[in-house]
Amino acid sequence: MPITAPPSATTLLAVDLEAVVANWRALQSRLERAECSAVVKADAYGLGATRIAPALAAAGCHTFFVATLDEGIALRPLLPGVTIIVLSGALPGAEDTFAAHAIVPVLNSLSDITCWQDFARKTSTARDAWIHIDTGMNRLGLTSSDARTLAAEPGRLTGLNVLGWMSHLSSADQRFHPASSAQLGRFQQHLARLPKARRSLANSSGLCRGRAFQLDLVRPGAALYGINPTPEVENPQRPVFTFTARVLQVRQVDPGMTVGYGVTHQVTRSGRIATIAAGYADGFFRALGNRSRVFIGGQPAPVVGQVSMDLITVDVTALPESTVWPGCLAEVIGPHRTVDQAATEAGTIGYEILTALSKRCHRVWLPEAK
Amino acid sequence: MPITAPPSATTLLAVDLEAVVANWRALQSRLERAECSAVVKADAYGLGATRIAPALAAAGCHTFFVATLDEGIALRPLLPGVTIIVLSGALPGAEDTFAAHAIVPVLNSLSDITCWQDFARKTSTARDAWIHIDTGMNRLGLTSSDARTLAAEPGRLTGLNVLGWMSHLSSADQRFHPASSAQLGRFQQHLARLPKARRSLANSSGLCRGRAFQLDLVRPGAALYGINPTPEVENPQRPVFTFTARVLQVRQVDPGMTVGYGVTHQVTRSGRIATIAAGYADGFFRALGNRSRVFIGGQPAPVVGQVSMDLITVDVTALPESTVWPGCLAEVIGPHRTVDQAATEAGTIGYEILTALSKRCHRVWLPEAK
Repeated sequence: MPITAPPSATTLLAVDLEAVVANWRALQSRLERAECSAVVKADAYGLGATRIAPALAAAGCHTFFVATLDEGIALRPLLPGVTIIVLSGALPGAEDTFAAHAIVPVLNSLSDITCWQDFARKTSTARDAWIHIDTGMNRLGLTSSDARTLAAEPGRLTGLNVLGWMSHLSSADQRFHPASSAQLGRFQQHLARLPKARRSLANSSGLCRGRAFQLDLVRPGAALYGINPTPEVENPQRPVFTFTARVLQVRQVDPGMTVGYGVTHQVTRSGRIATIAAGYADGFFRALGNRSRVFIGGQPAPVVGQVSMDLITVDVTALPESTVWPGCLAEVIGPHRTVDQAATEAGTIGYEILTALSKRCHRVWLPEAK
Repeated sequence: MPITAPPSATTLLAVDLEAVVANWRALQSRLERAECSAVVKADAYGLGATRIAPALAAAGCHTFFVATLDEGIALRPLLPGVTIIVLSGALPGAEDTFAAHAIVPVLNSLSDITCWQDFARKTSTARDAWIHIDTGMNRLGLTSSDARTLAAEPGRLTGLNVLGWMSHLSSADQRFHPASSAQLGRFQQHLARLPKARRSLANSSGLCRGRAFQLDLVRPGAALYGINPTPEVENPQRPVFTFTARVLQVRQVDPGMTVGYGVTHQVTRSGRIATIAAGYADGFFRALGNRSRVFIGGQPAPVVGQVSMDLITVDVTALPESTVWPGCLAEVIGPHRTVDQAATEAGTIGYEILTALSKRCHRVWLPEAK
């Protein structure tokens, strides 16, 4: 589908909502009986939660995870009737706000549980919650000792409606990593001692690591957005977006000239440089100066010189003049330079490529409103 | 001034508008007679252009630079009576939009000039423009050859009201860098052949490199926001913001435990880990895993384990228990960890630290509305 945008738009993020939904369905088809939720935190990993979450809800998703209460509040009116769960939990003082927006916290400690129980008692209302038991991240969640205390003192759950028990895998992106089965084992041990409720352990990669990890509810994020959940094999997920930026200018350069800040690139033979309207403020990391490339008309154009805040300069000497002109679109992320490739170039993971995407880009939603 | 924020807010960006204005005035005091404009592109380097630009306008700034036309359109209604200039120029087809919002383009090539002249002719209206002559960046602007053509064929400017001639320094952050004086020399040579108009060359660093660089108008950005324009000496500018994030949880850890994704941190002695509500989606670069720190109660807490999207884990064993509790604020950027220090840790420059700041943070403006 051709992308149209006004000439005032110099960077374009085109998100294919159908592909996001297809990715969610593809993950769902791997499940035996678990529910497939959707993780839409950090603005759906930078792609736009206010459009993506409703599209997934329309496709049948009815549980959504966000990182912060504010993210949940922003989505609540767009997602009537679904469960919205806040992973970072309920800080003391935020109880009323959770309740006012019908948002469910993940309780991450015994003190979270006590606090939420106090709230239930004070308001004479049973309160929904998920409870997180840490099994090896040491990041959020009850410690093993806390979980044993909870099992030994079930009165600590009075007044709470425990929707489920969750934990989080540290290393599921690596196939057969011993941490994954160790975490599953620890989780099962805790669950055996605790009241029955739904169980959730797997992120995108985890749900691909066999049915043992899927339990009752899986929580994919990355794979919804086209990141490969199984890096050891070809990506089974569809790419969901392209990020393009306009060529602003094409210039002739000659030996002896330098390009960009700090004169880090010296021109050694005559050629052409195109200046493109995307820089590190648009998520094109500064670390990629002199060592990345974009694609114009499907052909690679290497970045020369440092990345500026709003601009990069690329060598287009090898490209036909007819394919590079002011206003034409350069592919920054897309079929030729995938999210995972961009991540490898930048020495990071696809997740960070996504969340760094510019907020100032012009957004196009495919399929466009019918 | 104490910062207050609702408990639902887990990351806080507190911007001191008075400090931004003071920085602008401090730069202005270095000028002999040049006008001090303000560069507010990329959402005022991530800090919030819709509040910062009006504060500067109220202080007397009357020329503002943005990167893109869309940025200019967003600011236009907030900045009545000032000049807004778009650095990336006018792509063909955008002329009417520039005119409709009374926004001035920087023309970067002979074809830009022709295009803008056609627009003036078509609308029978003289059109304001700045013209950019490249002197060594090879990024945007007329080439030397183009500038000579323009000097030889003054009819190319008919219909244009040239507000000024500009160029851009590549290496002004390095004191006495030979590129700076070479660029100034080339710029002066071109100016001698062209019709008289205002002249602008210096960014934040450039305006500190002596009056020769200041000419008629300077264009500071970074130094307004507290980045050191003269890295060889102590920062003369005031810090303008703090970025803090709440501690979500504090946990006991024991030898043999691991922390975070990919089990990259192994606990070697018993201690305490605090989990903090900021991750790479908030601009805390993933590259800082196991090699950065934040400050809690003024004391350093080293990052252990990888940076997650929404969270970091820090070792607080050395900190008094009374200073670290769920809900307390950790300083991510502030008096103890400055923008420039954060940049050094991350192997980048302060500019990228700023533009990577989260869009999901709760914003507090100091002094708060009176």
